[in-house]
Amino acid sequence: MDKVAKRAKFEEAWSRIRVELVDHVASEGMPAEAIEWYGKNLDYNVPGGKLNRGMSVVDTAEILKGAPLDDDEYYKAAILGWGVELLQAFFLVSDDIMDSSITRRGQQCWYRTDGVGMIAINDSFMLEGAIYYLLKKHFRGQACYVDLLELFHDITYATEMGQLIDLITAPEDNVDLNKFSLEKHRLIVIYKTAYYSFYLPVALAMHLSGVPATYTIGEQTVEPYKAALSILLPLGEYFQIQDDFLDFSASPEELGKVGTDIVDNKCSWCINTALAVVTAKQRAVLDANYGRKDAAAEERVKQVFEAIGMKDRYAKYEAKVYGRLNQLIGEIPESDEPGTLKRAIFTSFLEKIYKRKK
Amino acid sequence: MDKVAKRAKFEEAWSRIRVELVDHVASEGMPAEAIEWYGKNLDYNVPGGKLNRGMSVVDTAEILKGAPLDDDEYYKAAILGWGVELLQAFFLVSDDIMDSSITRRGQQCWYRTDGVGMIAINDSFMLEGAIYYLLKKHFRGQACYVDLLELFHDITYATEMGQLIDLITAPEDNVDLNKFSLEKHRLIVIYKTAYYSFYLPVALAMHLSGVPATYTIGEQTVEPYKAALSILLPLGEYFQIQDDFLDFSASPEELGKVGTDIVDNKCSWCINTALAVVTAKQRAVLDANYGRKDAAAEERVKQVFEAIGMKDRYAKYEAKVYGRLNQLIGEIPESDEPGTLKRAIFTSFLEKIYKRKK
Repeated sequence: MDKVAKRAKFEEAWSRIRVELVDHVASEGMPAEAIEWYGKNLDYNVPGGKLNRGMSVVDTAEILKGAPLDDDEYYKAAILGWGVELLQAFFLVSDDIMDSSITRRGQQCWYRTDGVGMIAINDSFMLEGAIYYLLKKHFRGQACYVDLLELFHDITYATEMGQLIDLITAPEDNVDLNKFSLEKHRLIVIYKTAYYSFYLPVALAMHLSGVPATYTIGEQTVEPYKAALSILLPLGEYFQIQDDFLDFSASPEELGKVGTDIVDNKCSWCINTALAVVTAKQRAVLDANYGRKDAAAEERVKQVFEAIGMKDRYAKYEAKVYGRLNQLIGEIPESDEPGTLKRAIFTSFLEKIYKRKK
Repeated sequence: MDKVAKRAKFEEAWSRIRVELVDHVASEGMPAEAIEWYGKNLDYNVPGGKLNRGMSVVDTAEILKGAPLDDDEYYKAAILGWGVELLQAFFLVSDDIMDSSITRRGQQCWYRTDGVGMIAINDSFMLEGAIYYLLKKHFRGQACYVDLLELFHDITYATEMGQLIDLITAPEDNVDLNKFSLEKHRLIVIYKTAYYSFYLPVALAMHLSGVPATYTIGEQTVEPYKAALSILLPLGEYFQIQDDFLDFSASPEELGKVGTDIVDNKCSWCINTALAVVTAKQRAVLDANYGRKDAAAEERVKQVFEAIGMKDRYAKYEAKVYGRLNQLIGEIPESDEPGTLKRAIFTSFLEKIYKRKK
């Protein structure tokens, strides 16, 4: 199936899920305005993204099965995939308020739309609440149910920890580069992004497919969830570092948007890489100009980034991490047994990311 | 044990739980500032309330056992009790932002304290996340684990639905009494307050104590969770109606605060009771004066409330609901078997509420 058809199929599952969610709220006896409001909340905030996270649950389930999923298997995997998208929507709706963002996915942020305002906070809660309603409805009584619940809980909490570090490290209105470091950047990226964007979809598909906590292949004991984590967290870190680098280096035409990390005081890989190697004079330029709403200041920061050879440093990082990830993936013991980990899960992620331009 | 000692014992359990929560975040490798921030979030927002909801888990567990809880039983019940308090803190921190509130529990609202602002949204998420961390740590593998998880999920989602109806029915900046009705009031109260404040603590204690979904006493089949719901939702409604009435009728000295429901455009029992019986002339007074930030307007609304005999109407409501609740409680079949429902659970709630003055 080509990419467009795959997306269309995944979106079809959403139409069903959306009806289930709205019908449930209606069945609780909510007034018509509340039912309508909830439907708008779902429509505005859940389905309009790239859907990479959600669709990777389905892709991973298919790789684990080694054959196309039947209709029931597909819908179950799609529910978990849309669970990840609901979780993301919960984070994005609330992050936009916390970051005072203006637009998201080419439209006004939800909290900025007419009549919404701070009600968006409760709307974000209901996006999270929808996940557990769906899990109960479709997975209750199944062997993987508790694992699915715990996975969503653990990863939601981890993401909130990442968001906390990010918020107190890089507030938009109080620039202090002393708070930044590559180590802080790594923590933020792993907790705020990698867990829910990379580990969560794969681990959900693994539980759904009955991958056990341990198994043996020949002489080797495999701990497949630990193995997945050990690859997907650095993979997620690589993805975010690439994002940070493209924000600085890609043209608006390539990127599809204008990079704003420097102006927004973001704790990005670029600034942290610079901070680790700059001279005292360059550091003074960064201190004076990073995080200012001013194009000339932004340009002075960019000049420092050029002067320290950011592009070369990124190219070296990318070559190294690509090699290391391929090595880690190659070390996973494989067999044809059902319910065992497959290297293709990870290579498919890696090849989508490697050398991407946007 | 007297009331003061009971509260002190429950607060002692919180000191242990707080350490568990902060230690866990530290063990994840969070930076010192984030660990410190989380500790402040917990201290500021969780333990300073009346603790009625949390302590009623412990009380109910003790009534179900029919004997004092041992140390381990007490701590387990207290964790569930503090889970209810964490859930409440999650709601209050975020509600205060949505309602633009100024103070809470005699101190500035968290989002209004120095350096916090919208970070309070993520802080509220972490209060919710803490519940599931504690449940996993202390109840994983126990028979009641999934029931506890589902109970917290279901009731969180229900409360969010109630909050949504309230927010779109009674926005502070857009008074429209046509949106109000006693039926709307009932829905808001049941969903926004009664489920989490009354049903949740009792149902948690029931699951903890091994009360099954059904049992028989003599010839009668009992569905104890349904029975509990059928009493605790109207009980919670009664509690809130009383709250609404006291906001109008009690003196600031009795109430310990100044009532602001009229000025704040609250969808209160009083305004809905009035709307159902007023003349066209009185209705015009309400339309012109309800929800205005103006003491003279508030006084005109109060005169209409007096004119329709609000105090008598409340007294009649209270007598009737008290009788009805006593009847429902009396109809619960009782036996000395462990794991069965006891009427004393409900009478202890009812007697605390009946004719309270604040």
